[in-house]
Amino acid sequence: MRRPSLSVLILTAIIVVLAGGLIATLLFVASQPAPQRGIPPLVEVAPNEPVSAKWGLNFPNQYSTFLLTEQNAISTTYGGSALISKLEQDPRLVTLFAGMAFSKDYNEDRGHRRSLEDVRATRRVNETTPATCYSCKSANTPSLWAEMGMREFDKQKFFDMSARITEPIGCANCHEANTMRLIVTNPALEEALVALGKDWRTFTRQEMRTVVCANCHVEYYFQGDDKYLVFPWRNGTRIEEIAQYYADTGFEDWKYPDAGTSMIKMQHPEYEVYTADSTHYRAGVACADCHMPYTRDGAAKFSSHNIQSPLLMAEAACGACHTDVSYAVERAKRIQDQVHETMLKTEDALIAAIEALKAAASDANADQSKLAEARTLHREAQLRWDFISAENSMGFHNPEEALRILATAIDLARQAQLKAIAASQTALLASALR
Amino acid sequence: MRRPSLSVLILTAIIVVLAGGLIATLLFVASQPAPQRGIPPLVEVAPNEPVSAKWGLNFPNQYSTFLLTEQNAISTTYGGSALISKLEQDPRLVTLFAGMAFSKDYNEDRGHRRSLEDVRATRRVNETTPATCYSCKSANTPSLWAEMGMREFDKQKFFDMSARITEPIGCANCHEANTMRLIVTNPALEEALVALGKDWRTFTRQEMRTVVCANCHVEYYFQGDDKYLVFPWRNGTRIEEIAQYYADTGFEDWKYPDAGTSMIKMQHPEYEVYTADSTHYRAGVACADCHMPYTRDGAAKFSSHNIQSPLLMAEAACGACHTDVSYAVERAKRIQDQVHETMLKTEDALIAAIEALKAAASDANADQSKLAEARTLHREAQLRWDFISAENSMGFHNPEEALRILATAIDLARQAQLKAIAASQTALLASALR
Repeated sequence: MRRPSLSVLILTAIIVVLAGGLIATLLFVASQPAPQRGIPPLVEVAPNEPVSAKWGLNFPNQYSTFLLTEQNAISTTYGGSALISKLEQDPRLVTLFAGMAFSKDYNEDRGHRRSLEDVRATRRVNETTPATCYSCKSANTPSLWAEMGMREFDKQKFFDMSARITEPIGCANCHEANTMRLIVTNPALEEALVALGKDWRTFTRQEMRTVVCANCHVEYYFQGDDKYLVFPWRNGTRIEEIAQYYADTGFEDWKYPDAGTSMIKMQHPEYEVYTADSTHYRAGVACADCHMPYTRDGAAKFSSHNIQSPLLMAEAACGACHTDVSYAVERAKRIQDQVHETMLKTEDALIAAIEALKAAASDANADQSKLAEARTLHREAQLRWDFISAENSMGFHNPEEALRILATAIDLARQAQLKAIAASQTALLASALR
Repeated sequence: MRRPSLSVLILTAIIVVLAGGLIATLLFVASQPAPQRGIPPLVEVAPNEPVSAKWGLNFPNQYSTFLLTEQNAISTTYGGSALISKLEQDPRLVTLFAGMAFSKDYNEDRGHRRSLEDVRATRRVNETTPATCYSCKSANTPSLWAEMGMREFDKQKFFDMSARITEPIGCANCHEANTMRLIVTNPALEEALVALGKDWRTFTRQEMRTVVCANCHVEYYFQGDDKYLVFPWRNGTRIEEIAQYYADTGFEDWKYPDAGTSMIKMQHPEYEVYTADSTHYRAGVACADCHMPYTRDGAAKFSSHNIQSPLLMAEAACGACHTDVSYAVERAKRIQDQVHETMLKTEDALIAAIEALKAAASDANADQSKLAEARTLHREAQLRWDFISAENSMGFHNPEEALRILATAIDLARQAQLKAIAASQTALLASALR
């Protein structure tokens, strides 16, 4: 047999390398959705198009996984997507939210595709509810905001807008039509970022994979008679800065019955808690890395739009970085157990404070200055606890920060209790000694 | 020029690979200390030899780095090896340890080579101090325990044993002579492990790289009149299990003056805190991985015996696993800040409890049953705080556990304050209403 000459060997090697490169390039191009590989989209999608099914024709993998958020009904230990009553799980919440709607109806959130159905079913909505409550529940809002302006939208009543709200959360809540760029769609987020001196148009794609979640997963309130949607971030997004904002503005969500405390209900501040120097955030991990892990359909690689707890897809979610997935899952479980234990202690302390406040408030001779101090302590304690309680991760998004905040909340709640007791004991003693 | 034939090319490749392997093998063998590469040791070391300099002749790299622990005098933000008064840094400690020696003299620990000098200099030692206090301060103890038995050793007075204690902490505290195997040398650790059903002789080398630190870096107490050294681990090494042990045995380190609480002083429970499911521990990281990182002297690879804060050698310590060392150091700083802030809140709560207890205890009419409950709450709160305060990492060894324990301590301290106020208010009211 003739030996191949060196030049033949070299030529063969060059051919193999070139052919390999060509095949890899073709596979990569094939893996991209049609519009992104230069092929005209199957369907032209209008700006702010509310109907996700139309976008889905161009992006079948993203859309078909997104549809799964409709069926998800699995609970994790402390969360998940099943329709579970938080009030039944932890009856302390009925006391903590006494006098406001969350004491009547407070369920675990289900998937994005269930958003519209669930907001219409909740008993927290009534004829006085503003349309603002639709802000984060529907893919119709970006086009309505563009058409009416957010202030006009928020002025409407919830039920008056219902005819124009037909779609649950969808593509238009996070994407620019056709370019599919991740964008800030909620004017309240735009305004909050501007107030912080930030321009999201300069953010990296990885930053946007966290910031788009802040279109909704944040603490917010309805400002003034217009019920204008505002994120309380003027001082910053830390709990102390948000608490200061509410103290400065004197805003109140409700008055605690009999205790008389002016209260704040926290919503779902996932963005604020996660970005407060959490380990994962500081390591450069975006929300989408864990909640929308990259997946494959044959040669096509795409981020799963079946947005849910990473614990329900740990191999894809945690496994992208952690070689030992069972270690990562066990860590999450342990951390959530520690936060949960501390959260229940905080609730007990708050309830003790509320009892003492009620007693003092019903005492006509109570020291009013001490009583006012006790109420401020109660408000500050409960809004801190709720910042972690309403945040959907049982502390896992930022374990040390969650536990630091709960420790502070316990301290403030017990001080509220002490101050309330002092308010009525002072009166009792003064009267007894008279 | 003649082209080399294929057979010549193949032969050359084989020679290069074999020669490379030979060189690598020789370098590896040369990197091992003489006794471990089959060469007889330069010096024969007797079992439990107290003089580290003798071992050092066989292990010059380990010994020379160990000697550096004598010079270390650098502070980190919350620790390090400089001789700093903790009482001056945080005067709350003077109140919290009132009535016992730590309120008079409580310094940051210096390096291992300074152990003997520092234990003799502390004003916590006096003529009643038992020899037990030498247990972890000298390389003489393993041979003395072997000779006298630990019970006989612990029965002696500190100053009576001083003539036989000539060496600071050294090789014999962790190593078996000649084999250099890591071993449990402290009989109290042996007994505590046996009580937990554990046999350290079956542990892996990686486990031993944590367990040998538990020869000293643990909570302990002196049992009975013999001042017998005991680790309170019968129920387990978690804080709740240790607290239960002390509650069951009724042990008391001191009586808090005027408040009357029966107190526990925690020592340095680094082992218990770290192994309570910390992230690093669960990931398989041993104490020695961070505090004694592998280093090189030319071809020789060895673990640095300059045992100190990893923050003072972050490239070697954190960098062995974390590609971004500045990220790891920043995380440590942030976590320690969060724990420190929470620790100071706990101290304030404890001091408030102590003030209320003193007032109640000085009130002859105070409700004695409520006062007893308040004292129990004070004891339980303070021992939890001290478990984290006396642990030398400002929570970094186990951030979530540290914050969980501090949150519980705040809650218990405020409950102690409430109960003490109730104890004397009840009396005051009863007397006023009479």
